[in-house]
Formats: sequence, C-alpha cells, structure tokens
Amino acid sequence: MYRPDVRVLDCTIRDGGLMNDWRFSKAMVKDVFHALVRAGVDYIELGYRADKAQFSPEDYGPWRFCDEEDLREVAYPCDAKVAVMCDVGRTDPDTLLPADESIIKLIRVATYVQDMPKAIELGALAKSLGYEVSVNIMAVSHVLEPDLDRALDELAATDFDMVYLVDSFGSFYSEQIHYLTEKYLTRIGGKQLGIHCHNNQQLAYANTIEGVLRGITCVDATVYGIGRAAGNCPLELILPFLKNPRYDVRPVLDLIKTYFEALRDELRWGYEMPYAITGLLNKHPRAAKSLLQGEGPPTYGAFWDELLHVDDT
Amino acid sequence: MYRPDVRVLDCTIRDGGLMNDWRFSKAMVKDVFHALVRAGVDYIELGYRADKAQFSPEDYGPWRFCDEEDLREVAYPCDAKVAVMCDVGRTDPDTLLPADESIIKLIRVATYVQDMPKAIELGALAKSLGYEVSVNIMAVSHVLEPDLDRALDELAATDFDMVYLVDSFGSFYSEQIHYLTEKYLTRIGGKQLGIHCHNNQQLAYANTIEGVLRGITCVDATVYGIGRAAGNCPLELILPFLKNPRYDVRPVLDLIKTYFEALRDELRWGYEMPYAITGLLNKHPRAAKSLLQGEGPPTYGAFWDELLHVDDT
Repeated sequence: MYRPDVRVLDCTIRDGGLMNDWRFSKAMVKDVFHALVRAGVDYIELGYRADKAQFSPEDYGPWRFCDEEDLREVAYPCDAKVAVMCDVGRTDPDTLLPADESIIKLIRVATYVQDMPKAIELGALAKSLGYEVSVNIMAVSHVLEPDLDRALDELAATDFDMVYLVDSFGSFYSEQIHYLTEKYLTRIGGKQLGIHCHNNQQLAYANTIEGVLRGITCVDATVYGIGRAAGNCPLELILPFLKNPRYDVRPVLDLIKTYFEALRDELRWGYEMPYAITGLLNKHPRAAKSLLQGEGPPTYGAFWDELLHVDDT
Repeated sequence: MYRPDVRVLDCTIRDGGLMNDWRFSKAMVKDVFHALVRAGVDYIELGYRADKAQFSPEDYGPWRFCDEEDLREVAYPCDAKVAVMCDVGRTDPDTLLPADESIIKLIRVATYVQDMPKAIELGALAKSLGYEVSVNIMAVSHVLEPDLDRALDELAATDFDMVYLVDSFGSFYSEQIHYLTEKYLTRIGGKQLGIHCHNNQQLAYANTIEGVLRGITCVDATVYGIGRAAGNCPLELILPFLKNPRYDVRPVLDLIKTYFEALRDELRWGYEMPYAITGLLNKHPRAAKSLLQGEGPPTYGAFWDELLHVDDT
C-alpha cells in the first residue's frame, strides 16, 4: 500500500552511537549522510546535543555532542533535514543557536513522562529559536496510564510539531501499538505522530508497520537496524514497504555492504537472547549487561527466572 | 492475551535441516526433542520422509528420511506428538506404516497448488493408515487466486485435520496474512488452520502473531528461528506470547545456549541482506545463492536491480 503522507527519519548515527559511544569517523558519517540523502530520507538524526559539563568530549565521539562545525563537515551542502536529539536534563540549552544560523532543522526532545514539564520548557526554547520540535516519550511501558494521559494533554497544548510513540524496551506487540497509537492520535491535538521501536522481540519493523496502518506519519529507522542492544527498525525494509517513488533503497543497500555488515560483527546489535529476554519481560536492556559480560547466571533459563523476579520483592 | 486453543509445532530439525542437509547428530536431536517435550510443545517435526530411490542416504543425514528406527532412537518414550513432512512427488508411500505401528502421529503433506490432487491422494493414504494429516500449501504468493481457491475447496472436501498457510518466501505483510487467514478459514470447512512463516523481512514472528489474532490455531516455530535462509518464527518468542501455562520457555532458552548460538555462527540462517532482498521482491531464496557464493553482482543495489527484472522479460 502506498502511503504518501508517511515520512522517514533515519537515526543510524544517533541510536547506533549508543553501541560505540558515538565513535563513528567523520568520513563514514559523511558517506552515510549523503547516501541517505540520495535514498530520499526526510530527516537524518546525527546524534545528541549532550552537555559538555556533564559528559567529557574525551570519553565520547563527536556525535554525542553534535557541535555545529562537526555537523557542517559531514552534512553540508544538502537538502535533507538534520535532526539532533536533546535528552532532558543532559542538554545545555545555551548551545542551541537560532535555527537560521544552524544546520539543524529538527530538535527531538527525549523525556520520561515524569519530566514532561522540563521537556516542554526545552521544546519551547527550541521552537522559539525557529526549529521544528518533536517530543519523544521514553519507557511508556513502565508508566501508569493517567500519568501518560496527562503528559499527552500537556503536549497537546504546545505548538510543537511532533510527538513520538517509543517502545524503549522492545516489549510491545501489535495490540499495544494499536492501542497506544489510537490514544496518542486522540490526545495530541492534530500534531504529527512518529514511532520509534526496538527489536528485542524481532518486532521493531512489524510494529512500525502496524503504527503506520493506524495513522502514524513519521517512522524512525536505521541502516541494517543498528541501534542500542537489539537495534531498531531496519531502514532497508521500511523504505520498500512505503512504496513512495521519492525513496530509493539502493544507496542504503550499498551502505550495508560497505560499512554495516562488518560493523554488526564488531558491535553485535540485533537479535541476541539476553536482549530478547529483557524485551519479553519488559525490562531495560541494561539488565542483560552482566550476562553479556559473562558474569550473570549460567543459563538463559536461570537468567529468565532472575529477571522475572528481580523487581517483585 | 491468553489463547488456550493455539497449539505449537516445532519444526527445528525439519526446516533447520535444509541448512545442513539434515546432518544433526542423534545425540543432539534427542536432547532437542526431550527439551521440547519439557517445554510443552504439541508437535515436534523431526524431518522429511524422503524417497530413497530419489535421494541417496549417502548424501544426507538421517532426518531427510526419518526411518522409523531413527525416530524411535531419539523420541521414545514420549508424550509429545512426532510429525514428519512428506513432499508430494518425493515420498515413497509404501514406507508409511499403519499409525499404530509407528511413532509418527502427524503426517504433513507439503505441496504446490498445482499438485493438490497428488497431495490429496497422499494425505488420504496417511489418513487411512490412522495418522493425523495436514496439508501445507507452499509458494502461495506465486499463484493466481482462483487456483488457490479451488485447491482450498478440494481440501475442504477431505477428512484431513489441518491446512497450513505458508509464507514460503517471507514476502507477506500483516495485510496479506489477514486476508489469506480469512480466506483459508472461510474455505476449509472447519479444519484447523496452521501458519508457517519465513523471516526474510523480520516478519516471521509478527505474521505468526497476526495469524493467531485472526483465528489460526496451530503455529510453526523453531528454536532460535533456525530454518531455510532467513529462518522461521522463533519458538522462544511465540511460547511466551501465547501465555499458556502448559508451556515453559526455559528448556528452549537453555537449548539455545547449548547448541543453537554456535550453530547459527556455523550455518548462518537469519537476517542477511541477500535473503531480505529476495523476501522484499517475493523471490525464492535460491535467487540469493550466487550472491552468497561470491559470484553475484558486486553490490546489493545491483543485486536488487537484477532480481527486480529477472522474471520480467
């Protein structure tokens, strides 16, 4: 089915950077960016704007901070829209230039439900500077519904452009995606709705499709599904699904062969049992860390039992 | 959601055997079988009953043939139901014993639409010998709909137990699964409907769920998703989804650590671009063979173009 109203945001460098502390070379990011432009991708998110008072540039690659000059080095000149993510409480708002002096077009504010007032403050600043603004609400599988409803109502009262439904732990089935998509669309007052899924249960792409079928109009995806832990919705699958003539999957396919197959062997995102188990049990993937470092229970069955009971005492 | 009416058929050894010519050791198959029994799996398919006049036992492991004594060696005694697949035209019907002399409980006849009369003949023989019988119609994404309808009507007139919706090339989205599930259920006259999906587009598990949500009552799955090319619906995901107290996922998790993680590194089923591209373009995965052997086009973009036009001249 052709859905001309759906746009695609690639977050390869931003979410993939969670697997290597954003240490992608500038040459590679430049190649990736321009291939994505050729593929017709609508937004390209190149990293976080992290506060250097909280995170030392010695400990991370450049895409943790997305300095204006680094962005221009890889993304200029272009027609595509550069996006940057700002974590509530981890961003120095003074580093945001007026939009007409910046290469950034879209600021994505990432927040938990309980920080919504701070998210709205940061979003309002970005909006006043001339950026498009999205608010991405993380970890909604761990909140009480009245709290989520209130947060959505607060967003509805803003002039922001987009809200994102996020499956942080890769724990949702299509039933939850349908339910939440309907809730968000009902409450956010005509704003665009995006979706960002994780692949712990091999459902990132499927749930993204289910969101689109129910009215979502902006989808997050990454090349070869790179992203934290089990990764994200693969860009090379969602572009052909959308059947929009403005997209060309072939530059993405070629990026996979040039960079991402080798990178997957190195960084090991994707379907792995520790991440599948955290997804099945609706836990943050950090719960798998001890297991992946060889320090956890001796069997996956024992890990399942441990995780199942860890929060319940 | 708890669906007590859904049964699970594990086809790890049968479909996984397509990746190693069924050369699984008897010790391993025995371990797998009994772990699956502990997990509560309803049917366990241990291979094909191939005709030794057509396939030499020197060229394949034992699960290509499933001789009665080999089955008993790994699966006896047990409460679970042993299944064996019989390809139409590749099975010697004289090797089927009366069911009460066999450890096999379910015969699954695999057929193309155009061979349905032969499939019904073979199924009728198996039924007359006392087996449960399923007919699995392959490659339905490549048939004209009146031909499929007629085949389903012919099946409706039999006394077989089950019909299977099969996504041979991993090319279906949820929309096609919904459509075909409804069609099959409408036409097969009260028989059980099963589903068997391939994972080329990372949708095997998602589409299996979608089938269940629309009324399918038997699902195929394999340990760690092992199977031809991109593999199948992972058993360790579908068991927790069904929420049936008679299933226990932990023996499956432990099998993955003991055998299947190393096996995946060796046999390389799963999400790989050549298989993703054949799935996206609704082609048999054998189209990826030259590419996987290093003889195909130099880039995935060129492979995409080649495959897109290969049948169209």
